[in-house]
Amino acid sequence: MKKLVLAYSGGLDTSYCAKYLSKEKGFEVHAVSVNTGGFSKEEIKSIEEKALALGAASYTSIDAVQRFYDKVVKYLIFGNVLRNNTYPLSVSAERIIQAVEIVNHAKKIGASHIAHGSTGAGNDQVRFDMIFQILAPEIEIITPIRDHKLAREEEIAYLQQNGVDYSWEKAKYSINKGLWGTSVGGDETLTSHLPLPESAYPRQLEAKLPKEVRLTFEKGELVALDGNANSPVNNIEKLNDIASKYAIGRDIHVGDTIIGIKGRVGFEAAAPLIIIKAHHLLEKHTLSKWQQYQKEQLGNFYGMLLHEGNYLDAVMRNIETFLEDTQKNVSGDVFVTLHPYRFELNGVTSEHDLMNASFGSYGEMNKGWTADDAKGFIKILSNPGKISNYVYQKEQ
Amino acid sequence: MKKLVLAYSGGLDTSYCAKYLSKEKGFEVHAVSVNTGGFSKEEIKSIEEKALALGAASYTSIDAVQRFYDKVVKYLIFGNVLRNNTYPLSVSAERIIQAVEIVNHAKKIGASHIAHGSTGAGNDQVRFDMIFQILAPEIEIITPIRDHKLAREEEIAYLQQNGVDYSWEKAKYSINKGLWGTSVGGDETLTSHLPLPESAYPRQLEAKLPKEVRLTFEKGELVALDGNANSPVNNIEKLNDIASKYAIGRDIHVGDTIIGIKGRVGFEAAAPLIIIKAHHLLEKHTLSKWQQYQKEQLGNFYGMLLHEGNYLDAVMRNIETFLEDTQKNVSGDVFVTLHPYRFELNGVTSEHDLMNASFGSYGEMNKGWTADDAKGFIKILSNPGKISNYVYQKEQ
Amino acid sequence: MKKLVLAYSGGLDTSYCAKYLSKEKGFEVHAVSVNTGGFSKEEIKSIEEKALALGAASYTSIDAVQRFYDKVVKYLIFGNVLRNNTYPLSVSAERIIQAVEIVNHAKKIGASHIAHGSTGAGNDQVRFDMIFQILAPEIEIITPIRDHKLAREEEIAYLQQNGVDYSWEKAKYSINKGLWGTSVGGDETLTSHLPLPESAYPRQLEAKLPKEVRLTFEKGELVALDGNANSPVNNIEKLNDIASKYAIGRDIHVGDTIIGIKGRVGFEAAAPLIIIKAHHLLEKHTLSKWQQYQKEQLGNFYGMLLHEGNYLDAVMRNIETFLEDTQKNVSGDVFVTLHPYRFELNGVTSEHDLMNASFGSYGEMNKGWTADDAKGFIKILSNPGKISNYVYQKEQ
Amino acid sequence: MKKLVLAYSGGLDTSYCAKYLSKEKGFEVHAVSVNTGGFSKEEIKSIEEKALALGAASYTSIDAVQRFYDKVVKYLIFGNVLRNNTYPLSVSAERIIQAVEIVNHAKKIGASHIAHGSTGAGNDQVRFDMIFQILAPEIEIITPIRDHKLAREEEIAYLQQNGVDYSWEKAKYSINKGLWGTSVGGDETLTSHLPLPESAYPRQLEAKLPKEVRLTFEKGELVALDGNANSPVNNIEKLNDIASKYAIGRDIHVGDTIIGIKGRVGFEAAAPLIIIKAHHLLEKHTLSKWQQYQKEQLGNFYGMLLHEGNYLDAVMRNIETFLEDTQKNVSGDVFVTLHPYRFELNGVTSEHDLMNASFGSYGEMNKGWTADDAKGFIKILSNPGKISNYVYQKEQ
Repeated sequence: MKKLVLAYSGGLDTSYCAKYLSKEKGFEVHAVSVNTGGFSKEEIKSIEEKALALGAASYTSIDAVQRFYDKVVKYLIFGNVLRNNTYPLSVSAERIIQAVEIVNHAKKIGASHIAHGSTGAGNDQVRFDMIFQILAPEIEIITPIRDHKLAREEEIAYLQQNGVDYSWEKAKYSINKGLWGTSVGGDETLTSHLPLPESAYPRQLEAKLPKEVRLTFEKGELVALDGNANSPVNNIEKLNDIASKYAIGRDIHVGDTIIGIKGRVGFEAAAPLIIIKAHHLLEKHTLSKWQQYQKEQLGNFYGMLLHEGNYLDAVMRNIETFLEDTQKNVSGDVFVTLHPYRFELNGVTSEHDLMNASFGSYGEMNKGWTADDAKGFIKILSNPGKISNYVYQKEQ
Repeated sequence: MKKLVLAYSGGLDTSYCAKYLSKEKGFEVHAVSVNTGGFSKEEIKSIEEKALALGAASYTSIDAVQRFYDKVVKYLIFGNVLRNNTYPLSVSAERIIQAVEIVNHAKKIGASHIAHGSTGAGNDQVRFDMIFQILAPEIEIITPIRDHKLAREEEIAYLQQNGVDYSWEKAKYSINKGLWGTSVGGDETLTSHLPLPESAYPRQLEAKLPKEVRLTFEKGELVALDGNANSPVNNIEKLNDIASKYAIGRDIHVGDTIIGIKGRVGFEAAAPLIIIKAHHLLEKHTLSKWQQYQKEQLGNFYGMLLHEGNYLDAVMRNIETFLEDTQKNVSGDVFVTLHPYRFELNGVTSEHDLMNASFGSYGEMNKGWTADDAKGFIKILSNPGKISNYVYQKEQ
Repeated sequence: MKKLVLAYSGGLDTSYCAKYLSKEKGFEVHAVSVNTGGFSKEEIKSIEEKALALGAASYTSIDAVQRFYDKVVKYLIFGNVLRNNTYPLSVSAERIIQAVEIVNHAKKIGASHIAHGSTGAGNDQVRFDMIFQILAPEIEIITPIRDHKLAREEEIAYLQQNGVDYSWEKAKYSINKGLWGTSVGGDETLTSHLPLPESAYPRQLEAKLPKEVRLTFEKGELVALDGNANSPVNNIEKLNDIASKYAIGRDIHVGDTIIGIKGRVGFEAAAPLIIIKAHHLLEKHTLSKWQQYQKEQLGNFYGMLLHEGNYLDAVMRNIETFLEDTQKNVSGDVFVTLHPYRFELNGVTSEHDLMNASFGSYGEMNKGWTADDAKGFIKILSNPGKISNYVYQKEQ
Repeated sequence: MKKLVLAYSGGLDTSYCAKYLSKEKGFEVHAVSVNTGGFSKEEIKSIEEKALALGAASYTSIDAVQRFYDKVVKYLIFGNVLRNNTYPLSVSAERIIQAVEIVNHAKKIGASHIAHGSTGAGNDQVRFDMIFQILAPEIEIITPIRDHKLAREEEIAYLQQNGVDYSWEKAKYSINKGLWGTSVGGDETLTSHLPLPESAYPRQLEAKLPKEVRLTFEKGELVALDGNANSPVNNIEKLNDIASKYAIGRDIHVGDTIIGIKGRVGFEAAAPLIIIKAHHLLEKHTLSKWQQYQKEQLGNFYGMLLHEGNYLDAVMRNIETFLEDTQKNVSGDVFVTLHPYRFELNGVTSEHDLMNASFGSYGEMNKGWTADDAKGFIKILSNPGKISNYVYQKEQ
């Protein structure tokens, strides 16, 4: 019997796949879900029960939160990556790690096939297929949902005929939750002009009074919250819990999909937004102008390739090395105030702060140079312009 | 008697210059101020009276608001330019136009000298000197404040000795107001960790109830507000008046000055922030992925050179041409909701909206291609990765 | 009877298509070839005869040399575009224009189908298909060679069975000739380590004595050779004829194909190489540092997208506008000496030459500034470095 | 007596400085020269004798060839850096290392002053002053040549009055020789239109028969020539000796100086040109498209900052880290043929060669995918263009 690994979420599409592939296609289906921060233990338990009930030979839950941070999230912070200046790449980033974990699992158990539930209209199919094909060209990929384009009703009918009788109410919004943010799609996001209603967001406004938070970074990583040291992953989760009560980090991303159409998706990502903006502010104090200039270019590019599933391109490792190298002095505290729906960055303290009054204060006092130095500086800076104007006036 | 044009603001420093240059240095001082959106008629009247009282031979107020928009602000919108992802370059942009207007005025009246009140510690000296030297290398530049480094008390004492007895109370914050935003510096901005207090901002929160605003863009320019057509300059001013009541657009910019030190400055720029973000959203719907990619790079670069006073470099004209060319289809409505201290972008409608359901909806349905097309696409996208892995495995 | 336009070259593959599509598939085949500089009148006559003999209902030769220059070559010169620093994109550029001309022809005669002879392993299929699909999504594309993967022998046998008895000797090298260069593929280029033999190149070394040539550019376009004014197209052809006698402009391009594999192709492109290098030299004298910096980035990017068939992306028009805008002062003479297999750039004269001794001579004499100005300049340039070192030493 | 370190070359300018600073200014002059590949033992001996004869308290020759390679040249190879696509930055790169070595020497011997012989019209003053000021802000810089602007005759007269009677014939060309190339300035290079005469180049054509050379790279470094393993420095020197006999690597660089004027300088750099082009070819076979794309951008930027003396900016270390990381697979052989005045790259062999026929051969045969895969790929690539055209046609 041919072994197949199924990327299983517990939803209708992949449940259909589980039954269809085991019963109709005769595969030994090994269901697997990769936790990148979105699942509670209860959810995992419930997914497991469903998978086995649908005929899966086994179910495995892979805890990949730490690897997700180490391999991707860390670099998204180092690079201050917000796709189109807005979106922390919550889902894009997760899919990459999920794909890598799934293909590793498939190799480990000697599967000849991998199945996933992506449609033919989105980005996920590309991210999954590419990584599967590159890392395991010998494994065949099966995608019943993409191939059959079944309606929900047909899937439900099929499952009922086969004695599976869960309730498959269609949620109004499709939600994807993980360490680096929650995406919210459906209804309004299929239009260009409508915002998501307040109720669409999983986390609701609970806190109203402003709250100060101190983020401590060490070489670009979030090592403490309000002075309490903890692992970056724990700090992200904790900060997210605090800041989500303020309904911070909501927005809608409008982007170009890998398949060339425009797409729109809502998200809430309290911790990612606060961390990226706080980290960026700390960099403004600790990095040179040209470091910031190149980091912005490479960070954006890294985000583009990651978004497009190109995570395995060798240039990604090179950019990660670059980004890590820029973080040597990105250490210090950032002071943030949380308000309902927004946050304020108050300032930083850092031993590496390059804004240092011993040389002078911007616009107020120059200590490190004289007026004549400044005049000489500007005179010579003006050389190219002076020459151009001289050359062109001569002609007239 | 040698004619000198003095860039005059009515403040202590340039008042000292007016008296000092006319009395001690024997210049025929022609005071001039360039209005780029910050001055009311009353203020101009008051500046004029002061200038003449201080011994200026003439005073001229140049209204440059429209030219400021045409020559700079328009391109900052086209390029979605926010320096370091934060600052709309309010002051930087103004200084450029002010310098150009002043040097043109000096040439017109046949002045042999230009004086300005910049210190030796800031960006403005560079912007002024560079533009003066390039456009009029034959005119000599005089900067008493930079050269003498006088204390306020010394300036006041000198003016009093010369019968000038205005009250020169030092405002706690140095404020610079213009069409494209108001900067606020002083006290806390000289530290790295303190935010400006609420009271430091000229505009205070007045409105509390959410308000919807519709911005209409035509080829990238803001041509109407809530359906009322008007000139872009008028629309900016009107929107700013509405949105400033919500205390929107406040932040602190931390940047690298032209003279190489870090500086920090607060600002409030309600209209600039809303317009740039709304314009950017409209572009996400109407431009191709690669247009957005190149616009971001060139827009940031344009902002950097503008900030650094390099406005006259020929590349700036080339980039302006590029940016204008990208705006052909950036037309449509953007829906915004104003809230206290923040705003939300709700969505857009545009005839040029490229998010178009006839080809498929992101993640839901593919109409323009089949599952096999998608598989072929991904298979070939995977070629480079497959080949790399093949080559490297072979070695092992 | 359904009308089909066949991109016809006179070679075996497209001859097979002509017969196959008219006889087996029942199309009314309208053969068309687009001359982008590679065909003589005799060749066109011979292609026509062949097409009609093979059953084509009509044959049309489209002269697109001028449009090729106006729409693509001009910008490749403005941008100094050499793919991977080597290849003038000879074939890539032609294919674009050929595709556009073919699809326009198809629309004009009301064809429902377009056929071309590309294989499934190269770039041309992408360039053709993309442009056809975008400009005429209603027209169906047929590619028998790609679909059937026939061996040459099978094609010849089929044609002989159908009474077509041309001699189809396989040339050792596949040659593609056009205004912007000739590509040479086959045998050695399928390896990584072998160069093409001397004999593989269509043009052979004939001239041995050095020869001086003067290229006159006007706003970036080649308007005269040795003082003889002519159209840029004529000048390119004339220069190519002169310089090809020196076997100039030969090299091998190693590149990444659109389908993700590496490819290697030889070329000879005497005029393109000389023109680009001469034009670039003139720009070094007439453009600012930042113009050169941005032109290089955008020129390379333009080349990448053109190479990959993305010619119709809106960003390409924006970059063309940018490039054209940079050429305002790129006028003057460039002096070149031709030698066997190489050329030397001797220098330029230009009214817009920014290397102007009135300000000083590099390394020798400063006239526009003093030693103190220079010292002030350097002192302030050193500020960021000084501050960094101060901050980091403090820590130790 | 105050200790002063003098950057001493043995030429007229720095000989004048040696005498002037010791005799007139009362410094204890410690002459130092830094060998970055240009000096023979005899030359160093002769420089030493001159220095001591001129009144220097000591003379030190610092051998910095290996450090020059390790700190700069290596990265120029990794980045394929040719300034303005032409110049290997021979002198720019040397000056950086020389400045670092001089300031380290000054600190070691406890000098309070450093003197150098740069004029106020060139790049070197900036490179020296910046590095001295940043690394040792407490040391004062003295530049008699820049300050006094003496004519050669005045310097000679002064030296003769002080009993120094060397012959100081002005060489027609100013030559600077080092590991990474020799620059040649003077006379013709002060014009825009004249090339250097054959005789201006130190190395003359000696060899006429073509010669094959095999360059072996290991992680981007030149580890062997024709199979003979040696250190990269030795290989560069050896290759330079062989290839200089062919008068390879001559050209004229036209560039923007740090002080904003255009400058022109000839150079001969046989080994640098061959190594960079061979290394680049090997990268075309072993790196991904995006690695090449980002390397080009960062390599050019690195060259710009190095050229401008900004070597100590932290971004330079980050880029070096990036470049090094890209070289992991840049190993293999490159086959080169030397001819008089030029060389040909024949091809490469590499275990990491990504041009691999198992997936298909460019333009000939596709093995890793089908015609349908290719069609699906192109169809989806066409999506953005199709949608744009659809949207815009709808409007008409």
